[in-house]
Amino acid sequence: MPRAGLRVCAVACTGLMLSAQPGAAEIPAETAYVLNSLSFLYHGMLVFFMATGFSMLEGGLVRTKSVSTILLKNVILIAVAMIGFYLVGYNLMFYNVDGGYWGTPRAWSPDQTDALSQGAAPASIWLFQTLFAVTAVSIISGTLAERMRLLPFFVFVAFMSCVLYPVQGAWGWGGGWLAEMGFLDFAGGTHVHSAAGWAALTGAIVLGPRRSRFADSGEVRPMAASSLPLVTLGTMILWLGWLGFNGGSQGSMDSVADVIAIANIYVNTLMATCGGIVATAALLQLLRRKIDLTMVLNGALAGLVSITAGPDTSGIVGALLIGAVGGCLMLWTTHLLLRLRIDDVIGAIPVHLACGIWGTLVVSLHHPEGDIRVQLIGVAAVAVFCVTASVVVWIGLRRFMRLRLSQGEEAIGIDRVETGALAYPEFATRSVLPGD
Amino acid sequence: MPRAGLRVCAVACTGLMLSAQPGAAEIPAETAYVLNSLSFLYHGMLVFFMATGFSMLEGGLVRTKSVSTILLKNVILIAVAMIGFYLVGYNLMFYNVDGGYWGTPRAWSPDQTDALSQGAAPASIWLFQTLFAVTAVSIISGTLAERMRLLPFFVFVAFMSCVLYPVQGAWGWGGGWLAEMGFLDFAGGTHVHSAAGWAALTGAIVLGPRRSRFADSGEVRPMAASSLPLVTLGTMILWLGWLGFNGGSQGSMDSVADVIAIANIYVNTLMATCGGIVATAALLQLLRRKIDLTMVLNGALAGLVSITAGPDTSGIVGALLIGAVGGCLMLWTTHLLLRLRIDDVIGAIPVHLACGIWGTLVVSLHHPEGDIRVQLIGVAAVAVFCVTASVVVWIGLRRFMRLRLSQGEEAIGIDRVETGALAYPEFATRSVLPGD
Amino acid sequence: MPRAGLRVCAVACTGLMLSAQPGAAEIPAETAYVLNSLSFLYHGMLVFFMATGFSMLEGGLVRTKSVSTILLKNVILIAVAMIGFYLVGYNLMFYNVDGGYWGTPRAWSPDQTDALSQGAAPASIWLFQTLFAVTAVSIISGTLAERMRLLPFFVFVAFMSCVLYPVQGAWGWGGGWLAEMGFLDFAGGTHVHSAAGWAALTGAIVLGPRRSRFADSGEVRPMAASSLPLVTLGTMILWLGWLGFNGGSQGSMDSVADVIAIANIYVNTLMATCGGIVATAALLQLLRRKIDLTMVLNGALAGLVSITAGPDTSGIVGALLIGAVGGCLMLWTTHLLLRLRIDDVIGAIPVHLACGIWGTLVVSLHHPEGDIRVQLIGVAAVAVFCVTASVVVWIGLRRFMRLRLSQGEEAIGIDRVETGALAYPEFATRSVLPGD
Repeated sequence: MPRAGLRVCAVACTGLMLSAQPGAAEIPAETAYVLNSLSFLYHGMLVFFMATGFSMLEGGLVRTKSVSTILLKNVILIAVAMIGFYLVGYNLMFYNVDGGYWGTPRAWSPDQTDALSQGAAPASIWLFQTLFAVTAVSIISGTLAERMRLLPFFVFVAFMSCVLYPVQGAWGWGGGWLAEMGFLDFAGGTHVHSAAGWAALTGAIVLGPRRSRFADSGEVRPMAASSLPLVTLGTMILWLGWLGFNGGSQGSMDSVADVIAIANIYVNTLMATCGGIVATAALLQLLRRKIDLTMVLNGALAGLVSITAGPDTSGIVGALLIGAVGGCLMLWTTHLLLRLRIDDVIGAIPVHLACGIWGTLVVSLHHPEGDIRVQLIGVAAVAVFCVTASVVVWIGLRRFMRLRLSQGEEAIGIDRVETGALAYPEFATRSVLPGD
Repeated sequence: MPRAGLRVCAVACTGLMLSAQPGAAEIPAETAYVLNSLSFLYHGMLVFFMATGFSMLEGGLVRTKSVSTILLKNVILIAVAMIGFYLVGYNLMFYNVDGGYWGTPRAWSPDQTDALSQGAAPASIWLFQTLFAVTAVSIISGTLAERMRLLPFFVFVAFMSCVLYPVQGAWGWGGGWLAEMGFLDFAGGTHVHSAAGWAALTGAIVLGPRRSRFADSGEVRPMAASSLPLVTLGTMILWLGWLGFNGGSQGSMDSVADVIAIANIYVNTLMATCGGIVATAALLQLLRRKIDLTMVLNGALAGLVSITAGPDTSGIVGALLIGAVGGCLMLWTTHLLLRLRIDDVIGAIPVHLACGIWGTLVVSLHHPEGDIRVQLIGVAAVAVFCVTASVVVWIGLRRFMRLRLSQGEEAIGIDRVETGALAYPEFATRSVLPGD
Repeated sequence: MPRAGLRVCAVACTGLMLSAQPGAAEIPAETAYVLNSLSFLYHGMLVFFMATGFSMLEGGLVRTKSVSTILLKNVILIAVAMIGFYLVGYNLMFYNVDGGYWGTPRAWSPDQTDALSQGAAPASIWLFQTLFAVTAVSIISGTLAERMRLLPFFVFVAFMSCVLYPVQGAWGWGGGWLAEMGFLDFAGGTHVHSAAGWAALTGAIVLGPRRSRFADSGEVRPMAASSLPLVTLGTMILWLGWLGFNGGSQGSMDSVADVIAIANIYVNTLMATCGGIVATAALLQLLRRKIDLTMVLNGALAGLVSITAGPDTSGIVGALLIGAVGGCLMLWTTHLLLRLRIDDVIGAIPVHLACGIWGTLVVSLHHPEGDIRVQLIGVAAVAVFCVTASVVVWIGLRRFMRLRLSQGEEAIGIDRVETGALAYPEFATRSVLPGD
């Protein structure tokens, strides 16, 4: 992703020709253009599939009385985020690179006399970038599930796709100050995952936990996932889509060097997930003698997020270790959140925030140009910005509209309140307890 | 899709070389051949995934006692349609282009001395065309669900893939009279979606509604969808697959111009869906204060169908508006069908028929060569043909075999009658009421 | 797949240049390298999706009290198999081709002075091979579901990915003795499907059936699948992924001849599935007057397995017939297993073992170089090796750890025992009978 941005940057700002890349000289410019565009389209398709993955994951993790609404949120947020990113976000994020103001990605303007110099079809680049914005926004919906009303959620989605995601994204990927410092975030460990994680964390704190989630005694009341097959399906779709997320972030596929890099990225992405799975399962077996499926699936996602900042340089064994540490970190953060009485319905904060930070910092160990201080500055800057902006917006929203359901509404379930239709209307479900 | 046909046409009929296309001159013919074939294979894979989408969508929208059968129909219809289209349909549809009689797509005959002149692997072209036929047939199964017996349904599927779809498809895509008039239907707003919609509508009328769907008082009895997560999954898979449906219809991927077109098609297809989603959700919020998930998902599909006739020339904002109007039109048509007491179980008629027509007509506004009279003629001709042929076949079938379940069979549910196995045998479902 | 291996072989062993292939001379080496790598990455992505398909298929076919565990097994086995194949299996399988010892696929070693001579990115080749190992291992989990404990299962998975799959795979695909004899197995009818089928069969025999599956009277007690939509979803995803499994096994995509072959493989793969579906459905209608959805889906998979050994040369009509015979064979083998009181929960033995053998033998009829004796020798050698090795390991495992649940554990269900969480905790399911 950064490479996608940088590629646009390299072409538009500095006038470097594509042929200056290693190996690219041999592939004719027209063929290269088609191959680069195909990479964005094909990998973009995989990233788009991640939206399905998030929907299934979140739909499976909430209780049966909240499934319709979380699915509805995940569908509508795609539309809101795409439109917002088209109108405002894209130009804000790539102003340094692409010029133009809102609603006018310069890439499409008809006065492009030399299409070839862009290296890839402008709409394919835009598509890939937009789907990253959609992914970032998808991360927060699950954390706030079962209690947050639809309208304020969509207002936050619009803010995030128009401002929050693009501004911090511009720092690293739009030719901004983090890029100049040498901050490394290959496919969004920080710019997508921890950025969205901070927004989710502040949202969860401002919103408060689901009623009856935490007893006054401090005890955590279990709230079971409605459908583990859906959770598994969603996670496996995300795993698949992540090949596009990381692979497409190479930004070009027009040389031997590029395609070697993409293949390594695929393998490292898969291997980090394996690390997350094995570490989580082993730890659960040791600590609890039962291997909880939901936690192992979050371990897979933890591995994926952990490798996202550097799937190009980790190496296979490195990827395995990075993913394994990510899995352990996810388990510990899950525990920590419960102790802090922060209610993250699907575990997005342990997965995306904690592992996004971990993966970004560890890049300094395996990337030849990695610098732990720069990585720390980048992580911290994004944290400060996202926390501040999110808190302001969440609290601002709370002044003007009701953010969450009333106690009575929460008891009968958000589906009856917001959508009027249960997800499984014909099925008999366990008698709904007062606080359930 | 038309382009796919036209490409074959251009090569086979007029002898134009691929290199005559803009920009294509620069890519060597062998590389172009591989890229074109890859486009059909990759986009065809996405179109094939739509069959999974239809299965999940329809399986989620019927009641629990009808789920197995609708899944079975959707699996078997793929086989029937592919075999039918292979034996009869393909040659009928592309006779002007490809020559040959049934069972012998000329493209495969071994006397092709110059493979390169075909521009793409013949089997890849055939694959893409065949999967369009499968898609067309998939559309009608849901409308007729819960009451139509298996055998007559498959006879209609065979008729549709052998005759109904290919004949009207030949008019526009096989070098027929609509093509000569300049009728524009890029990826099948008319030739796939409204054609199938007409077949579904006539089927729904001939078959009659599910018993107890409409009370004598005119009241509509709600019949809840069995699983909204399945409906959401199916819709999102269809959305994904539609990138291949529209993108692959560009027909070639061997030039800068082609890949720019494909990228624009992807973006416009996504944007039209966003328009359909937002318009439907907003309208529901205004009219009913609840946002029904099923309707929003049909809004997404309405946006997709609406853009299908012209995703190449709509522009982003145009796509958004076309999709938004499609969403509203779908809601209105859904309402209209209920008033007319026509029972369309999954809403295929509002989505595919109404929006297929709308999308085809609006092409005249955004396509440089669009002509509203020609578009109207095409829409009307397909309507007359499909309605006539469908009515004849439906009524003919009714003479020779029982089309629908008896009252008793319908009460116990089609799954027990046709497949002998419920979809969720271990789950307790709400006590089945006499007329339910 | 063999072609993938052979390609590596051809390049690494004999020094043949890629340009020696028909048509490849015209595509420049760098472009060819990108296209070949893309083929492995894209088709590998599809093969990876098959893991999701197996998970859904198996999760839908077991009873509700065993769903979490089978999903957990399917997720963790990916990690175990990938790591095992990386550390040991890959080098064992391709020692003749690639040299190197465990953990060091030579392809990645940095002293490769001439990347181009490899024909494709080494990691992309490794990815494709590894995902075949994952597929092979995925096949056995379902057969042993509902009664086998997690730990011994994963030990067997490690053995299979490290030794069992690579050793017999090396005979045919790693330049071994079967390859030298001219044994034909294009994408793994024997090396993947029947090999895994033998492991599943021996496991099912050593482990014994689920308690109460077979009454003392010999009667078979039906044990219903928990969710037919999941089974359908899984099967359709497998169908989709199989395009990559067979298509990617062509091994290269850098010439007109290659892409024609890949397109034919796609079409034949689809057609064989259609044959399996239609034959199974017709036979069920004739024999039982009800068309069981589960059996039709297994018929689709039977068609897919049947064509896997020769999708390149079967021809369309041949594919249809091969798939149809496969469907019938699957039905008959299912019946046979029940009579033999072998409990295969998901029907993997009828699908993968029986049809894997059938498809491998029939290659001798349609492949120009096919020889029934060589095919028989290959099938028999793999059978003897896999049965022997599996029996030794299964029985060895039984000495050192408890393979299966106790009677009480099996009654309450494996999910409560191994994962501690039911898959559908909120849903009311039919009262669990003592032996159920």
